[in-house]
Amino acid sequence: MKHIIVDAMGGDHAPQAPVQGALDALKAYDVEITLVGRLDAIQGELTACGVTTLPAHLHIQEATEVVEICDDPATAFKRKKDSSLTVGLNMVKSGAGDAFVSAGSTGALLSGATLLVKRIRGVRRAALCPQIPTKTGHTVLCDCGANAECTPEYLLQFAFLANLYAKNIMGLAQPKVGLLNIGAEPSKGDSLRLETYGLLQKAHDQGLLHFIGNVEGSDAMLGEADVIVADGFTGNVMLKTMEGTAKFMNMELKSIFLANLKSKLGALLVSKGFKAFKKKIDPNEVGALPSWG
Amino acid sequence: MKHIIVDAMGGDHAPQAPVQGALDALKAYDVEITLVGRLDAIQGELTACGVTTLPAHLHIQEATEVVEICDDPATAFKRKKDSSLTVGLNMVKSGAGDAFVSAGSTGALLSGATLLVKRIRGVRRAALCPQIPTKTGHTVLCDCGANAECTPEYLLQFAFLANLYAKNIMGLAQPKVGLLNIGAEPSKGDSLRLETYGLLQKAHDQGLLHFIGNVEGSDAMLGEADVIVADGFTGNVMLKTMEGTAKFMNMELKSIFLANLKSKLGALLVSKGFKAFKKKIDPNEVGALPSWG
Repeated sequence: MKHIIVDAMGGDHAPQAPVQGALDALKAYDVEITLVGRLDAIQGELTACGVTTLPAHLHIQEATEVVEICDDPATAFKRKKDSSLTVGLNMVKSGAGDAFVSAGSTGALLSGATLLVKRIRGVRRAALCPQIPTKTGHTVLCDCGANAECTPEYLLQFAFLANLYAKNIMGLAQPKVGLLNIGAEPSKGDSLRLETYGLLQKAHDQGLLHFIGNVEGSDAMLGEADVIVADGFTGNVMLKTMEGTAKFMNMELKSIFLANLKSKLGALLVSKGFKAFKKKIDPNEVGALPSWG
Repeated sequence: MKHIIVDAMGGDHAPQAPVQGALDALKAYDVEITLVGRLDAIQGELTACGVTTLPAHLHIQEATEVVEICDDPATAFKRKKDSSLTVGLNMVKSGAGDAFVSAGSTGALLSGATLLVKRIRGVRRAALCPQIPTKTGHTVLCDCGANAECTPEYLLQFAFLANLYAKNIMGLAQPKVGLLNIGAEPSKGDSLRLETYGLLQKAHDQGLLHFIGNVEGSDAMLGEADVIVADGFTGNVMLKTMEGTAKFMNMELKSIFLANLKSKLGALLVSKGFKAFKKKIDPNEVGALPSWG
């Protein structure tokens, strides 16, 4: 049974959301969970959820400090040694836990994970890799912001990491790996893309992954690729542009629906489908951000 | 009176669209227009439009060749010396015309314009700079694909060019200039962004433009900035991601509207507002792509 360490103090809705999430996860999956954070906060929240005695497979580990959003991300894990973040990551480092989940500061988590738990041997950089909703399902975008400056070797490694995720977590037999670029032809893009294209093609020829060539920003949401390889700068711009465009369109649609009595009636008639769609593209629903490496 | 040279043979709908557009423009604006292309094609199209004698301020310039989409963009203007593209650009070069408009190959146009007409003295690179629709109106994105590899100096020049456009064509008294980046703080981004931030801040301090700092992909469509400065690679990914996201959402909305009788009735009730919105974001409506430099 895998043992998941959960940061009970991380995120805008802590400790409610992490504690409730842990209780839900215990029911849904065959896992062991340890909540890390302030004892009074965790126990208070468990009581509020109607839990008086700890259920099987749920544990609490005390950590007296909390990494705040104003803390310097690069040094927070070191300065707050008894924070839920640092204590939780150290449990993964020591082997007491298999994975650490936090809704707290992404930067602090990434720095802490890299410097405490350390990267997999041979992996140059950890990456942030969300699943984005597409016409055909989901696509993994790797990297989306951890590494603003990248080398072709980093991008090749992102492709391998995302490919593994798409196979083992998303259950795809042969994930289609695409390189985010500004044209479909192999000759397109800057020198980083040209070199990376060569490396990905070589990996494809060796049977290590299934490279389908360049994909453009417009193809990404149409589900052309299961894995999109990008440097962290471009990946981040892409992800946030998707969010911004969706937000913009939602606002415009809302004003269309609220324009007059006729349109309001129309809105009522499509509200069910519309709600399901909003849920599908809501970053708060689909925005979990695994860090690999 | 300004003299506009129009490529009658460029684009998917040539010569119909350029000829019809020239006739419309003559009525709407105080301009002189020369259509460049094959005489029979232009005259045939004018006849089809019911024009038997040339109206005042409309001229025809023969060019026997056409640059096709399969021609190598870098050399097309040179290999097809009697193409509408090359003849038209040479008219601008010689001073016979003030500007050249073409719906043909963007690459061939950019190469031809750079090498025939040449850049403004001091401008390092020509850029492609579309207006993108936003919540508050339009934003100029500069560059969006002409230059995959950029220096901080290029980006500063893109800012100046787009600033001039926003002032003189869009009529904004003090355009807000933002740098496309992966975070709001000045310390965010890669070395290109850090150096460019310094140059833009200096230009702001000298009163040369109004720099509002970094803007993220998510802010762009909400109208935070009137001018968004980007390298051509990132700008292109941003533009195409907007197109892809909008296309994806349109397809999803269509399937919501067509789901059942109730939703179809709802669609009918909001169809007017929805059509206006689709027009607002349709790349075919708003996709003109000025090249500056």
